[in-house]
Amino acid sequence: MNKVPFKGVIAYPVTPFDDNENVDISLFKKQVERLVTTGSHGIAPLGSTGVMPYLNDAEKEAVTEATMQQVAGRVPTLVGVSNLTTEKTVYHAQFAEKAGATAVMIIPMSYWKLTDDEIVKHYDAVASKISIPIMAYNNPATGGVDMSPALLKRLLEIPNVTMIKESTGDIQRMHYLRRELGEEVAFFNGSNPLALSAFSAGARGWCTASPNLIPELNIALYDAIQENDLEKAQRIFYKQFDLLKFIVAKGLPRSIKAGLDLLGVGGGGFKSPLKPLSENEIAELDSILSAIESEVYQY
Amino acid sequence: MNKVPFKGVIAYPVTPFDDNENVDISLFKKQVERLVTTGSHGIAPLGSTGVMPYLNDAEKEAVTEATMQQVAGRVPTLVGVSNLTTEKTVYHAQFAEKAGATAVMIIPMSYWKLTDDEIVKHYDAVASKISIPIMAYNNPATGGVDMSPALLKRLLEIPNVTMIKESTGDIQRMHYLRRELGEEVAFFNGSNPLALSAFSAGARGWCTASPNLIPELNIALYDAIQENDLEKAQRIFYKQFDLLKFIVAKGLPRSIKAGLDLLGVGGGGFKSPLKPLSENEIAELDSILSAIESEVYQY
Amino acid sequence: MNKVPFKGVIAYPVTPFDDNENVDISLFKKQVERLVTTGSHGIAPLGSTGVMPYLNDAEKEAVTEATMQQVAGRVPTLVGVSNLTTEKTVYHAQFAEKAGATAVMIIPMSYWKLTDDEIVKHYDAVASKISIPIMAYNNPATGGVDMSPALLKRLLEIPNVTMIKESTGDIQRMHYLRRELGEEVAFFNGSNPLALSAFSAGARGWCTASPNLIPELNIALYDAIQENDLEKAQRIFYKQFDLLKFIVAKGLPRSIKAGLDLLGVGGGGFKSPLKPLSENEIAELDSILSAIESEVYQY
Amino acid sequence: MNKVPFKGVIAYPVTPFDDNENVDISLFKKQVERLVTTGSHGIAPLGSTGVMPYLNDAEKEAVTEATMQQVAGRVPTLVGVSNLTTEKTVYHAQFAEKAGATAVMIIPMSYWKLTDDEIVKHYDAVASKISIPIMAYNNPATGGVDMSPALLKRLLEIPNVTMIKESTGDIQRMHYLRRELGEEVAFFNGSNPLALSAFSAGARGWCTASPNLIPELNIALYDAIQENDLEKAQRIFYKQFDLLKFIVAKGLPRSIKAGLDLLGVGGGGFKSPLKPLSENEIAELDSILSAIESEVYQY
Repeated sequence: MNKVPFKGVIAYPVTPFDDNENVDISLFKKQVERLVTTGSHGIAPLGSTGVMPYLNDAEKEAVTEATMQQVAGRVPTLVGVSNLTTEKTVYHAQFAEKAGATAVMIIPMSYWKLTDDEIVKHYDAVASKISIPIMAYNNPATGGVDMSPALLKRLLEIPNVTMIKESTGDIQRMHYLRRELGEEVAFFNGSNPLALSAFSAGARGWCTASPNLIPELNIALYDAIQENDLEKAQRIFYKQFDLLKFIVAKGLPRSIKAGLDLLGVGGGGFKSPLKPLSENEIAELDSILSAIESEVYQY
Repeated sequence: MNKVPFKGVIAYPVTPFDDNENVDISLFKKQVERLVTTGSHGIAPLGSTGVMPYLNDAEKEAVTEATMQQVAGRVPTLVGVSNLTTEKTVYHAQFAEKAGATAVMIIPMSYWKLTDDEIVKHYDAVASKISIPIMAYNNPATGGVDMSPALLKRLLEIPNVTMIKESTGDIQRMHYLRRELGEEVAFFNGSNPLALSAFSAGARGWCTASPNLIPELNIALYDAIQENDLEKAQRIFYKQFDLLKFIVAKGLPRSIKAGLDLLGVGGGGFKSPLKPLSENEIAELDSILSAIESEVYQY
Repeated sequence: MNKVPFKGVIAYPVTPFDDNENVDISLFKKQVERLVTTGSHGIAPLGSTGVMPYLNDAEKEAVTEATMQQVAGRVPTLVGVSNLTTEKTVYHAQFAEKAGATAVMIIPMSYWKLTDDEIVKHYDAVASKISIPIMAYNNPATGGVDMSPALLKRLLEIPNVTMIKESTGDIQRMHYLRRELGEEVAFFNGSNPLALSAFSAGARGWCTASPNLIPELNIALYDAIQENDLEKAQRIFYKQFDLLKFIVAKGLPRSIKAGLDLLGVGGGGFKSPLKPLSENEIAELDSILSAIESEVYQY
Repeated sequence: MNKVPFKGVIAYPVTPFDDNENVDISLFKKQVERLVTTGSHGIAPLGSTGVMPYLNDAEKEAVTEATMQQVAGRVPTLVGVSNLTTEKTVYHAQFAEKAGATAVMIIPMSYWKLTDDEIVKHYDAVASKISIPIMAYNNPATGGVDMSPALLKRLLEIPNVTMIKESTGDIQRMHYLRRELGEEVAFFNGSNPLALSAFSAGARGWCTASPNLIPELNIALYDAIQENDLEKAQRIFYKQFDLLKFIVAKGLPRSIKAGLDLLGVGGGGFKSPLKPLSENEIAELDSILSAIESEVYQY
């Protein structure tokens, strides 16, 4: 087993719906194909961008299988399988493994704030039922619980838990993680506006929905870091900063779908209660994308 | 249709599980019976205390039906039917109405932060599919979105939405609500440590899990307010303050189940990842309950 | 020594300046006289409302002496003597005692966040140099440090420290204080929008600048509480709620001075960088005061 | 006039006191000399580290003059002259200019939260009375007001205001500043744990007290950035991270003075109510400094 199968830019597809609010698998596959061919280093369906918590079991399974079929081993896949209950998390993790996922991502979703012991038992229960690696995902804003570095350290003692995705948006947390957990810890950044800082801090990868819209810039940032060229990385980062800020401020599913529409790819519809961006917001996104277009070949 | 069918103390039962993590309907009915006979003015299954988001559809339906059978019209019932998607919220609201619920409670659950327009459409869609009243529930801590007084005003324009439950824990919000929405607005307090302040501010009722443990004190507080006897209300409130603080700090399902065990009623088990209180916490709860026992006949 | 010389409504005068930004002592005395004759139970110069931190030593001393002359023993006085350094706090506390103040109020001002031990030593050093009582004032928003109930308990062990003023704006804190410190603790509320809740919770008094504008309503609220008439207290509280909210939102010195101008008393000018309310804000205040005027005789 | 006279590492000396709590000018000069000779690119007396707000006028003036005498033009100087009132800020700014300061630093101190207009008028009033450049300093934690990028933009329109020091500790704010204010804006980082991220984001300099303890590492970090060697910068940053975190967590004056004692330089005493670190904290600092010592020659 390759314990840390990811590095670089891990792209998060949306989940498009048709007019009856059913998943549009055909459009989904087209979107995934585009992410692979534009150079993303990994594909992560059923993340927050993919509105996983809003899907029923059949929809999750269809999206998982469609991803495997379309990616077809060209890059590794990371499937979101988080659920409020341990039982359902195990269920989806096992499904993902069987379907061929390279790894699964798990955030400790919590309606009731979980204790550290409850979280450890939760990961442990899932890990014991699968043999692919787990990325532990910390995002207090969506998950409702903030896993401390001490807790993450405990999770990393579970053999399958080999990667951490940090989305607190606090760069100091990443520094602290690295000092506490050691230089070898595989941590991934999940906060788009922190992309430059996180790579500077030593992040192994960037989990992001933005390759749906600006794959060249995302990958160029990672390449500049690999070349140890900070000045170039800085330049490339600032070219995409307005977009990264916009998609986070307006919500990833809404923003990415609107952007895909603007780019002619097609973003697909929504599942209620989620609705599209307003006309004004779409116009703002259009002007950000146009400004990037005109700048993008200058670096 | 009675548009505001509640006042006073609305009691929230837990959902007990057996050793296989299946709902223990028999114990649940016993717990509900106790809430009714000790004088609660309404029964609210499938709330946060009832760990509704952790239950599957069959479990939610079984709990709803068991409540109706046991309460048997002695007091009004308020069934929690919230769900991330509009489709499932409609489904559960219709089930509750058909089963005989007096009203339903809906919090706009949000993994992705909903806009005001999305929230209004969500309530509107549900309201148009049922004919019993809706209590709109604001609790940023568990629901992830804080509905402003302006938004609540919009919701109250939907004919079925006739009640508001406020759980921000901020008394100033209640004052503001009452000034903005008018003296006739039916607002209910969902923050236990705010019970005295909320009644002082004019709350029509108190949504609380504490009648599982100290029904006499909860109801005595309401009675003192009805008698316009602030000094007595204050005295009664401080007798129960330590308990109210404890159950909120430690989590309602864990605390109430431990308390029911201590009282000999039986609290039932948990669904993973949720686990019981620790031994130390149970001992602390025991001493709080014992102190109340010794004081309770003094007011 | 009367150890707790205050109860009821403690009124905070502003400090008016002339066109050269010098204190206008004559106008100040007129404002203080009005506070005494309209029934406030105590007068507290050099509070936040009196912009104490913006005054130099000579100005503070002139304001202190003017207060003593004007009040002339008709009600007790509470002089603000807080300072970043212990040395200057002692200096001003001794000046106040010599001038005839009934008590002094001290907030642990902190540019650098003080430790609990530093705060205790600070109060202890001042207390040992004067013989009048000290009101310890907790207001994280202006003082920069939030004194825990445990710390306040330590402060109350210093013989001179006999009163607590709580301005966190969190009613749960007041409940907790009373449970932790005992029913006999003399705690005063410093958060205007919390006036009703704080009295309901057992506060002995209300430290407020609002008697500059609506003394009858402030005192009527206290009287209703004394009469144990919660319904009346609630009615009177909601009449003044909009004003209490406004003066806190816009800043007490600005709002009170504008209000005094509107009432024809004269509020006086400001010391830079502080400036008056904008025209729009003054118009909003005017309409709030007018609405109160028309309602005020109805309770 | 050189409008942006700083870049690189700007070192903040402490203000040492003797046993009678008087400023120890002789020790202060020794500390400043050490900062200059170990390579700092600028010296900034009377900052937060220098406990400026706790000093009286005479003490501030003595510290300003001692700095000028000791630095003697070898590097530029940046003198803190902030005050609650505009009048005193002008006074100290003029004193600093006359004494020979290269520039002054001004934070809008606020007991009462200032409006944007009040802040602009404040800076404008000071700027019009001096002819040296002003660094506008944003630090909500100590100053009590958070200046938005829009407000900073307005301040930069005042001719003398040519530099910004950002200490919110939020790297996204720096990115936003640079996008909003243009690549040419001279912004300085004032948050120690953000040193690497801020340089990566394009900060022109780092305002820090840490050169009192680890000047080689601080300057090496800046040099690596100048060499566009991110990997080296990262390595050097992590060597000093524990110390940067410690001095911020424990308070700069306390930590730096303890560190200077440990290094044999002598930190000097405190002015009450500020007190030294505890024994345990000093031991922790000692072990952090020792760990750095043993690592420092490895990069």
